[in-house]
Amino acid sequence: MSPSALLHKQYSAGTMSLLPLIYIGWSDGILSPRESEVILQKLEEFSFLTGDDKTQLKKWCDPGTPPDEETFEHWKTLIFDLCKNANSKQKEDLIELGLMMARSCDDCEDVSYWTSDQTKAALDELQEKLGISNIEAHRKLFDESEEELDSEFDVQNMCRLLDDEFHEFKNKIRTLMSYPEFRMEVIRDKDAYRTQIMNWCKELAKQGLGALSYPTSYGGENDMGKYSAFFEMLGYHDLSLAIKFGVQFGLFGGSVLWLGTKTHHDKHLQAIGELKLAGCFAMTETGHGSNVRGLKTTATYDANTKEFIIHTPTEEDGKEYIGNALHSKMASVFAQLIVDGENHGVHALLVPLRDQTHKLLPGVKVEDCGYKLGLNGVDNGRIWFDKVRIPKENLLNRFGDVDETGSYVSPIKNPSKRFFTMLGTLVGGRVCVPRAGLSAAKTGICIAVKHATKRRQFASKEGQKETLLLDYPTHQRRLMPLLAKAYALDFALSDLSKDYTKNLNNDLRRIEGTAAGMKSYATWFTTQALQECREACGGKGYLNENRIADLKADTDIFTTFEGDNTVLMQLVAKGILSNFSKEFHDDGFIAVLKMLSSQLSTNVFERNPISKRKSDRKHLLSAHFQMSAFRYREQKLLYTASQRMRGHIKATKSSTTAFLKCQTHMLALAEAHIERIVLEKFISQVKNTQDITCKNMLKKLCRLYALHTIEGHKGFFLEAEYMNPSKTKAIRSLIDELCADVRQQALPLVEAFGIPDEVLMAPIAI
Amino acid sequence: MSPSALLHKQYSAGTMSLLPLIYIGWSDGILSPRESEVILQKLEEFSFLTGDDKTQLKKWCDPGTPPDEETFEHWKTLIFDLCKNANSKQKEDLIELGLMMARSCDDCEDVSYWTSDQTKAALDELQEKLGISNIEAHRKLFDESEEELDSEFDVQNMCRLLDDEFHEFKNKIRTLMSYPEFRMEVIRDKDAYRTQIMNWCKELAKQGLGALSYPTSYGGENDMGKYSAFFEMLGYHDLSLAIKFGVQFGLFGGSVLWLGTKTHHDKHLQAIGELKLAGCFAMTETGHGSNVRGLKTTATYDANTKEFIIHTPTEEDGKEYIGNALHSKMASVFAQLIVDGENHGVHALLVPLRDQTHKLLPGVKVEDCGYKLGLNGVDNGRIWFDKVRIPKENLLNRFGDVDETGSYVSPIKNPSKRFFTMLGTLVGGRVCVPRAGLSAAKTGICIAVKHATKRRQFASKEGQKETLLLDYPTHQRRLMPLLAKAYALDFALSDLSKDYTKNLNNDLRRIEGTAAGMKSYATWFTTQALQECREACGGKGYLNENRIADLKADTDIFTTFEGDNTVLMQLVAKGILSNFSKEFHDDGFIAVLKMLSSQLSTNVFERNPISKRKSDRKHLLSAHFQMSAFRYREQKLLYTASQRMRGHIKATKSSTTAFLKCQTHMLALAEAHIERIVLEKFISQVKNTQDITCKNMLKKLCRLYALHTIEGHKGFFLEAEYMNPSKTKAIRSLIDELCADVRQQALPLVEAFGIPDEVLMAPIAI
Repeated sequence: MSPSALLHKQYSAGTMSLLPLIYIGWSDGILSPRESEVILQKLEEFSFLTGDDKTQLKKWCDPGTPPDEETFEHWKTLIFDLCKNANSKQKEDLIELGLMMARSCDDCEDVSYWTSDQTKAALDELQEKLGISNIEAHRKLFDESEEELDSEFDVQNMCRLLDDEFHEFKNKIRTLMSYPEFRMEVIRDKDAYRTQIMNWCKELAKQGLGALSYPTSYGGENDMGKYSAFFEMLGYHDLSLAIKFGVQFGLFGGSVLWLGTKTHHDKHLQAIGELKLAGCFAMTETGHGSNVRGLKTTATYDANTKEFIIHTPTEEDGKEYIGNALHSKMASVFAQLIVDGENHGVHALLVPLRDQTHKLLPGVKVEDCGYKLGLNGVDNGRIWFDKVRIPKENLLNRFGDVDETGSYVSPIKNPSKRFFTMLGTLVGGRVCVPRAGLSAAKTGICIAVKHATKRRQFASKEGQKETLLLDYPTHQRRLMPLLAKAYALDFALSDLSKDYTKNLNNDLRRIEGTAAGMKSYATWFTTQALQECREACGGKGYLNENRIADLKADTDIFTTFEGDNTVLMQLVAKGILSNFSKEFHDDGFIAVLKMLSSQLSTNVFERNPISKRKSDRKHLLSAHFQMSAFRYREQKLLYTASQRMRGHIKATKSSTTAFLKCQTHMLALAEAHIERIVLEKFISQVKNTQDITCKNMLKKLCRLYALHTIEGHKGFFLEAEYMNPSKTKAIRSLIDELCADVRQQALPLVEAFGIPDEVLMAPIAI
Repeated sequence: MSPSALLHKQYSAGTMSLLPLIYIGWSDGILSPRESEVILQKLEEFSFLTGDDKTQLKKWCDPGTPPDEETFEHWKTLIFDLCKNANSKQKEDLIELGLMMARSCDDCEDVSYWTSDQTKAALDELQEKLGISNIEAHRKLFDESEEELDSEFDVQNMCRLLDDEFHEFKNKIRTLMSYPEFRMEVIRDKDAYRTQIMNWCKELAKQGLGALSYPTSYGGENDMGKYSAFFEMLGYHDLSLAIKFGVQFGLFGGSVLWLGTKTHHDKHLQAIGELKLAGCFAMTETGHGSNVRGLKTTATYDANTKEFIIHTPTEEDGKEYIGNALHSKMASVFAQLIVDGENHGVHALLVPLRDQTHKLLPGVKVEDCGYKLGLNGVDNGRIWFDKVRIPKENLLNRFGDVDETGSYVSPIKNPSKRFFTMLGTLVGGRVCVPRAGLSAAKTGICIAVKHATKRRQFASKEGQKETLLLDYPTHQRRLMPLLAKAYALDFALSDLSKDYTKNLNNDLRRIEGTAAGMKSYATWFTTQALQECREACGGKGYLNENRIADLKADTDIFTTFEGDNTVLMQLVAKGILSNFSKEFHDDGFIAVLKMLSSQLSTNVFERNPISKRKSDRKHLLSAHFQMSAFRYREQKLLYTASQRMRGHIKATKSSTTAFLKCQTHMLALAEAHIERIVLEKFISQVKNTQDITCKNMLKKLCRLYALHTIEGHKGFFLEAEYMNPSKTKAIRSLIDELCADVRQQALPLVEAFGIPDEVLMAPIAI
């Protein structure tokens, strides 16, 4: 007797005839009561079944007792084995397969039963009633090379949740990006590449997308939310295009819109939105990036001619990394405004760079920054000014001006407040950049996940199919937490955009800290996620054709521009501290400490021995525990940072030195603060989600994000004795479990990002 | 009275006249007893000093009581302040400055004292006796823009320690790489770039560098150690050159040398070493990278014609990422050797790809892999074979052959052993690749450190000089641990090379695990270090001109090729486990567990409450504590991994499943194992270093590496209750301290890498 014969000895021909159908019925894990009822009803009519057959089949079709994994696998092996000689047409017919199996049975006494048209017709009818398609069945049975998109949740609804209020608009953009005109290509020469990007930018401007955030009177839609949603979408396409677009319409246009007044708007805004006037945002200098206040370029007022003289004092005070510098006709130049010998701090002025023939104007020097790690479609350059004269009107004068008598005037008396108000233009960038970065990360995750559900490596037994990459626990540990965090960040960044859009005309300082922190947290994630995805795709991830290479190279600078992440995180921490104590003098400080320590003591119940050890699933999976842990970390770091600051201030009499001494502590505090915000938002998103299938899925992702983040800080929690070892160990196992669970839905989860294949492009993912 | 007058009111003219000299004397932190003696002696002779002056000056010159920081800074401010109107010539004369200060004093009654030639001469004489150079003094006083290379240790000796036995040879290579012919340029077009790389390779071959590891009879030096040292040096140059070189001479040449026999050597080795025969190493397939054993390409023996038929069964079985594929005339093809219908496993065969006119031979298809994230100077391609016939002699037959009767014969009977013996050729690559990667990381660290000692950002007080980046604690935390780890890895990798070279003709399996683990650990470090360096250099780090961009892009694949790091680390773990138990049957396993648990108990003294809490400096800085912690981690992970494995094997009866379930655990174990080896080597290096200045410096680096690594695993140590919170907190402060300390020597430490400026190239670092 052959080994296969041994295998199916236990089943009768009658049961065999229905086995493929039943196998498929159970293959999604659940045979529904309706399906079961249909089968039971039909069974009675089947004259070709014996009583024993019927008893056995009824058992198999009880929705309450699904077959165990071993039985299920055994069925599959049987089908494979007995049907291996089937031709391709037979393989596409579930009933034909069943009959073939029946015929091959040892107990099959009368083959005619299993060849008759009547039997076949009866079984076909059953299949039809069950609504099982042969195509799907065939895929489930024989085509294992690709995993199907077998989702537990409504993918379309999930996509809608991520798209938020801009779902329709984003769908339009998806279509637009899929047009052949927007097909990405490898262009290695920077000049040719920059031309391509410029042409795309013009095309987008033509579609009215450049002016989205401008007032309708200048051809815009006065919709900052839509602008930022569009910027997110650009993150799925060529990042050079996103950045070029952001420089022209967001930074340059934004400076005219927010720092200029009606004269400037009337004169330039329409042309900027249509990209008839290309401009750049000339803030950073070689010697001064993060320290904008220390910029060296000067704009000195000459009362005689009513002009400003723009000047770069030394070589290293030249403007640096200025995007669009090679293509621009004009620049928003940030310079120290000197009126009558007095420095009024940094202001922006419009300085023409080139004439209509694109020749540089006298006194202006521009140099190409050359090739960069990525973003080579963006023309970054250096700009120097040698006593360039511009008319007084070119000062973007919303927050500071020179009046007719030649005196400096400003609606904001406090120079420091004025400076930070003007810098508010940067907040928009910090809201948008991480969204494009997240789109890049999502593209990478999508590619890595799809690859890992196709590529196999090593068989667990000789002769078996090799294992899918995504079925390796290490691979799940690599990719699933990234997937969860991408979802977490998506909701948090959307929320930030909304908050920003709502408060555009109010005081932006309230959200400045969150924007700075989210920008840092999210762009660091992008760098980390794409690195992981590259490695997870092995050599394939290194090839340009699979996109991750460019995504990595292009987004690498996101952690630096629009504010260096490390510097921004310190701003965040300072903001948190100064919410509690405006000044660091001792009296106020002690009050703060008292308040903080009383706040912490309300948390003490979390620290009692039972809670420290509590490690049952229910507790660990609860949003309440997770949120408490995140809050505790933030508060504890705030408390200890305040204490340390106080000690240092006492000792050194200098809050600057104290800040310096606590720098690494500050970074941890800022991170804890941002993570708390992200988790809060995610939990409330889960709570407010209507579609129950999406809600359940999001709940899993939220738990994975929360627990994985806690695990990353396990050293902190153990050191603070907020958790004990048994608890952190339990968290680790739970994460393994969640990773394996989310892995089951990894494909639909990346599908819900809604990245069109034409943009995804990677051969390993399509 | 002006503020500056207020400042120096307390000092007399006489003391002022010597202040600049004394300031410089103390500026390196120590006024030596000899210097002090010289001053005290001279003081007595100086008629222009009052008794009070002398008393004061004597106090200032007591080697036992150095001025406190505040006084020292006060001196500097005074000198700055009073000499700000000095002309440049005066500024270059320390005595002139002293006299100028004396003259400006309020109590200066007789100016003639401080203008007389006599006084000047007397003071000049003192300066000369002290051996203080004006140039150096000027730099210390006025030129703060660049930090001087003020080293505590002998930089040349340190370089010699790193270069090990190849110091002279490496110096020659440093000179060679600095020649104008080897000047690197940005070449964006891949074909032009590949031509450049090929030409460089030919030049190196001409110099005899390609054949270094081949026998002298074929033009080589029979020196694998030298080859590997040269490969390390190539890591400072263009990485495309390193990889192309490695493919031609190491992989292709290596396969002929190690898998072939005399016929092949005689026929090809000389031509390969001279790059007259370009070849590639065709192992990896699209569907099979890590799983070499599962390769699909076949080499079927045709006894009639005494030929092998090389065949690629399906599209995705094509050879993939093959370096040198576009330039090669021949390939070492790894294929399943089928003789008389029986598969004898993977063997290598020489298959001609192109004729002398470089036209592809019939049945061979080659496709360009196109652009990649980096290494675009290397021509990676895909190769397919369609029943290509090659003569029997082309089988590299050292470990397997077909005899005259047409039967397969092999000196190694066990097919598994045979396979792993043949794969031994890969060990060389795993020894060399991390060394080139480390050189790239060192280049990045050197650039980032040099930049951070020039670039300033934010002043701590209005009007003060801005702070150097490297004086920020966060910046020190970013770069100093990387610097320490680069040193740690350098010694460990040198050691591995030596071990490999020594054992070339013996069983390499002993070092296979260490090679695989070191390759993974070191190349992950390269990726992480270069990422950190890029970010630490901000926008400047993103520009191609500053090298980090290319270094990052080029080395990113190092974590994948020559074996995917994650897969390799599992091999390491399996190796560790199977050292204890050759078979995973239960009996042997329990014995292992018993043995392990008894080993661990000898460590129990480390776990008693006192040791857990012990956190004094001396204890934490001791190599004994550090080594114990590393060893504990390895053993504990080994113990728990074994326990878990045992549990899973009991439950599933399958060691494969058990391995899968413990995968992440295995990775941690492998890491702990490699880290223990690295620290052991570093400690013994410190111990064996003769030069006391280098020894002291290395000791600091070793401590930083050890404690920083422990901190990275703080979650583990707390969870295992091997340390308690007070201890991990003390370690954190100690690391901050060590970072600040090493920072003082950061410049000489990167100088000791010996990277020539011509190769370093980055404008921000030169």
